Amino acid sequence: MGGGTGTFTVLSGLKKYPVDLTAIVSMADDGGSTGILREEFGMLPAGDIRRALVALSSYPEKFLTDLFTYRFREGEVDGHNFGNLILAALERVTGSFEDAVAAASRLLDVRGAVLPVTFSNVRLYAQLENGEIIKGETNIDIPKHDGRLRIVRVWLQPKGRANPKAVKAIRDADMIVIGPGDLFTSIIPNVLVSGIRKALRKSSAKKVYVMNLMTKHGETNGFTGADFLAMLDAYAGARMFDYVLINTMCPPEHILRRYKKERAEWISYKGVPQRNQERPRFITAALLRRGNYVRHDSAKLAKSIMKIIQA
Amino acid sequence: MGGGTGTFTVLSGLKKYPVDLTAIVSMADDGGSTGILREEFGMLPAGDIRRALVALSSYPEKFLTDLFTYRFREGEVDGHNFGNLILAALERVTGSFEDAVAAASRLLDVRGAVLPVTFSNVRLYAQLENGEIIKGETNIDIPKHDGRLRIVRVWLQPKGRANPKAVKAIRDADMIVIGPGDLFTSIIPNVLVSGIRKALRKSSAKKVYVMNLMTKHGETNGFTGADFLAMLDAYAGARMFDYVLINTMCPPEHILRRYKKERAEWISYKGVPQRNQERPRFITAALLRRGNYVRHDSAKLAKSIMKIIQA
Repeated sequence: MGGGTGTFTVLSGLKKYPVDLTAIVSMADDGGSTGILREEFGMLPAGDIRRALVALSSYPEKFLTDLFTYRFREGEVDGHNFGNLILAALERVTGSFEDAVAAASRLLDVRGAVLPVTFSNVRLYAQLENGEIIKGETNIDIPKHDGRLRIVRVWLQPKGRANPKAVKAIRDADMIVIGPGDLFTSIIPNVLVSGIRKALRKSSAKKVYVMNLMTKHGETNGFTGADFLAMLDAYAGARMFDYVLINTMCPPEHILRRYKKERAEWISYKGVPQRNQERPRFITAALLRRGNYVRHDSAKLAKSIMKIIQA
Repeated sequence: MGGGTGTFTVLSGLKKYPVDLTAIVSMADDGGSTGILREEFGMLPAGDIRRALVALSSYPEKFLTDLFTYRFREGEVDGHNFGNLILAALERVTGSFEDAVAAASRLLDVRGAVLPVTFSNVRLYAQLENGEIIKGETNIDIPKHDGRLRIVRVWLQPKGRANPKAVKAIRDADMIVIGPGDLFTSIIPNVLVSGIRKALRKSSAKKVYVMNLMTKHGETNGFTGADFLAMLDAYAGARMFDYVLINTMCPPEHILRRYKKERAEWISYKGVPQRNQERPRFITAALLRRGNYVRHDSAKLAKSIMKIIQA
């Protein structure tokens, strides 16, 4: 459960294991190509759905997933993501967003299911510590406001009704993995949807939170791992998680310096209880991918998650 | 061989028979969504290719062919045909128009082959009887000039080099079906491509011309069946055809009246030699589809073509 690239990473890693995967995806996104399609077509947000579909595609040829990810760079369609346009056209062709996602799933030969957390046309709002109210995921995500101000509350308007299939998947799951992803704009918007929080509480699945690697300016400045958990406790329900998976590998200094310019900081694993027996149990592992960006390695992440399933 | 809806009709009908189909498609189109993509992306014309791909698709679910045919009616992508955008994105993803068509063929599970007649970026020109020169297929097709003026000559600029696979398909064919389709803007642009005329002459295939049902204002005003054939003799080579398939069923009077407003007239089969033994042999049959437009019935047309194959 999540949205964005974090969910893509989890799904890409786990699909190599013999597990039945269901992606439950936030529907609060309103930036970029997704935002334009929301405005112009009155369409539900497609971006995170598209990423999850591509992650779970078992289509043998790369061109189809390349096509879904392709972003036009010329002409009238400049800036539009192709997969989003496919979903927009499929919505018109099939008559509903739900059928469009199902059709795209068949088209991409998706193994598993990709479920929008809601089919309600929800908008994310945030209130800052100075009282200011920000409308729209993209305005929270890329702050025009003073990004150092803390978010004191986020909510959806309308609250939205949970996709019944998402509720069922949560109840039937053996394990629920939440995150990694932007806390207020990708993760919490899922549990804000009416019915999801309750379904999570009722589910007997093992619940795992994959801790983010970095804080995010305008959302989680200065947050420690404990702050992330406290916020999730507040929104998803107290002591929801059985496990928290946290990375121990510090990114190289020169990369951290670049991130620091964007006011993002590494979330240290220091202070995590060792051999803890209480809920949640903290599982530490080196989860970093090599490269210029601080990202989870999908194979390492999936391996750690599978260990928890088998525990 | 052709372009446009006529070729779609032939392919849709023939695909129900156990025959290996290859569509050779004109690349002179420059109108509508295709024209915009030619201008903005420097892309080869996609429209006729797309129609042929959809005709030969054996994808079990209708949504994929619906998607390829879908035309956006809102926002920045207004007027764009979705299949054309798929081909545009696939061209960028795969690196060439040829690979894009191949990828789209796999995507649609095309039985047979769809071959652009050329990969050269050709433009169609026409000279009218008053000396005026018209540039572009769409300007000839939808005349801004006096549509009653006869076309005295059409040519491609550049002449274009034949797609080697199209040349091979022509040489290896058991039967070549040309038309129906707009004479100067869909049919003749194929034989104008360097190498195609020669390949047709060298091929030992049975060659069938499917006569149009109606004349077209600005292209073939007042043309009889004999005029169509004389024009094809001039461009494709004298006495090219073994068979000419011609419809005998007159459209209803009220439909003909509507067409008359667009200065289009039914092409009568009267005067066609009966039981002729000379080349070309004229095959007459009731080929009209029921409906508000004067169109070939794909099943009837395919049945008549199959009779010629078996003759």
